[in-house]
Amino acid sequence: MINDTRGHVSELLAKAIKRGALDHEMTAADKERLVEFLRIYGDLSPDLFYKGSTRSGFRIFPGAGPESGVSRDPIDMRLLLDENLWTGVLFEDTFVMQATMLQPVGGMDRIPAAFYKRMHSRIRLGAQVTEIRKLPDGVRVVYYDRTAGGPISITAAYAIVTIPLPVLAGIQSDFSPPFKHAIASTAYDNAVKLAWQSPRFWETEDQIYGGISFVKGETTLVWYPSDRFQNPNGILLGCYNTGDDAKLFGALPPADQFSRSRSIVNELHPGHGADLLHPVTVAWQKVPFNLGPWVHWPEGPSAEYNLLNQPDDRIYLAGEHLSHVNGWQEGAVLSAHRVVSEISQRVRSAQA
Amino acid sequence: MINDTRGHVSELLAKAIKRGALDHEMTAADKERLVEFLRIYGDLSPDLFYKGSTRSGFRIFPGAGPESGVSRDPIDMRLLLDENLWTGVLFEDTFVMQATMLQPVGGMDRIPAAFYKRMHSRIRLGAQVTEIRKLPDGVRVVYYDRTAGGPISITAAYAIVTIPLPVLAGIQSDFSPPFKHAIASTAYDNAVKLAWQSPRFWETEDQIYGGISFVKGETTLVWYPSDRFQNPNGILLGCYNTGDDAKLFGALPPADQFSRSRSIVNELHPGHGADLLHPVTVAWQKVPFNLGPWVHWPEGPSAEYNLLNQPDDRIYLAGEHLSHVNGWQEGAVLSAHRVVSEISQRVRSAQA
Repeated sequence: MINDTRGHVSELLAKAIKRGALDHEMTAADKERLVEFLRIYGDLSPDLFYKGSTRSGFRIFPGAGPESGVSRDPIDMRLLLDENLWTGVLFEDTFVMQATMLQPVGGMDRIPAAFYKRMHSRIRLGAQVTEIRKLPDGVRVVYYDRTAGGPISITAAYAIVTIPLPVLAGIQSDFSPPFKHAIASTAYDNAVKLAWQSPRFWETEDQIYGGISFVKGETTLVWYPSDRFQNPNGILLGCYNTGDDAKLFGALPPADQFSRSRSIVNELHPGHGADLLHPVTVAWQKVPFNLGPWVHWPEGPSAEYNLLNQPDDRIYLAGEHLSHVNGWQEGAVLSAHRVVSEISQRVRSAQA
Repeated sequence: MINDTRGHVSELLAKAIKRGALDHEMTAADKERLVEFLRIYGDLSPDLFYKGSTRSGFRIFPGAGPESGVSRDPIDMRLLLDENLWTGVLFEDTFVMQATMLQPVGGMDRIPAAFYKRMHSRIRLGAQVTEIRKLPDGVRVVYYDRTAGGPISITAAYAIVTIPLPVLAGIQSDFSPPFKHAIASTAYDNAVKLAWQSPRFWETEDQIYGGISFVKGETTLVWYPSDRFQNPNGILLGCYNTGDDAKLFGALPPADQFSRSRSIVNELHPGHGADLLHPVTVAWQKVPFNLGPWVHWPEGPSAEYNLLNQPDDRIYLAGEHLSHVNGWQEGAVLSAHRVVSEISQRVRSAQA
């Protein structure tokens, strides 16, 4: 699709140039260079037609002895003009969606797991924050200790709060009224991820190694594992939707979600719906200490964003929601660095 | 480069369509669809100009707090029209050069090494073939045993000869005169690969992880390791040339080859010529049992190719040189499968 499209576009532009359509802005020399470039760019024939390209692969692969390769016929331009098609094909050209060159062994959550391993003596798990209070020279946080069973109060000179805003909105606090209002009014998106264990039919039958098939409808996509290629089984993501699709889909009983995902996978990979086993589904908006996958500023970062990026007295907020890299660990890390650096400067100034 | 070029090309084609340059072949509805497609394809503004795209990255990356991303200005179309540039950029769109998704751990020669591991009881190393003779019902091969030191003669019903043609041309044989002529007249290419050990400055300073820099001049390219990312050292290919460049370059004393390669790398990565250590250079045309990297049919497979793909009596040739996948292990494997299958059919027919 990519190479045939580039070929067709190059042929059309070469034709238009030859007809003088761009004489207004180009010299004869410019035009000649541009046409020569298009010949290479689109793999055009010497007479500037796109007649297919081995860049797009072969109908019959080159072999041994008399078996020479047979080119594929190019896909008709009209078939390539579907807007839905290009949303999918160009997905990986989006800045944050470009193909990864490296991935953490075991998945993205191995990054926080590695922090935990180094820092676990300073981390208290099972600590459900119930109050965030301002003190004259510091902050008091009260949490319910889910292991010991009682409320515990701790104080510090400063606090960095990385609790997602929909959760934070439900915690008693001394935040200023505009700060409280900004926290309460910030909407998070919805997202559902649904996964199956399955034999790797996408590898053995379709030579798909990682990547995404975009499907129409509520489940949005099918995402193939990018690790442990050629193992007998793999984890297939059978749904990853957001927005209203995720809100409605996530409200269905899990059994219904599984049956809809299985049916879509079966349509995409005929006969393989029955291979899907052991499903799991997670609706981020229902995860108690998340209540949503990521912040969703309706029109990009706003006045609320700017306010919440300022400290309220000695309390600083940090997280992906306070960065321009929404929904990614990178945003959370950048935000953490920023806030730690601000506190450091504040302490130094106070000491100076 | 890729995204900015696509943007410029889309803008120009949209402009030409709006001016009616393609009215001859398109309906108004076609034109409308094509323009809408170009808007998405090239990331054009609503008024169909290419004003840059975050697909091409950012001048300043999106960060935390107030640090929103700042777009890059698009590269001027005139800078993008260099023909040499596109030979490099489109290199990986060539069918056999498309980016690999998988690579053998330890490199390509681990594949023959794995065959050796399974079959070594049937493989005789150090066997320098000196004669290939036809017998009434078979083949006799005489070889010089480089370990034991004497000539050894073996016979079999059939022989498959995978010796590269320039080496085979120097071996006494009973091949038919046209077969001998075809073997002797087939030219092989030249190729020199030169490698350095070096600290991975390309990773730490330039964020280059694998891939090739094409350089002008006799050394052709610099190729970065695609394995063991972020190790302290890596193997940098400082030259991989072919044809006349390789013939001349390979004839230089190694010390001169190293100094030329070091100087090119230093120009490409200023200051890092001095980091390059422990060079090795191999000119395939000088490797005694190769005498060239791969067959080079001047205008694609020829009458000689067709003849050598037929058996001469009970002797079959096989190898990359007898396939349409020249110079690749895949060609050798396909050729081997083909010949084994032909012998099998011949034996079955004879028995029937």
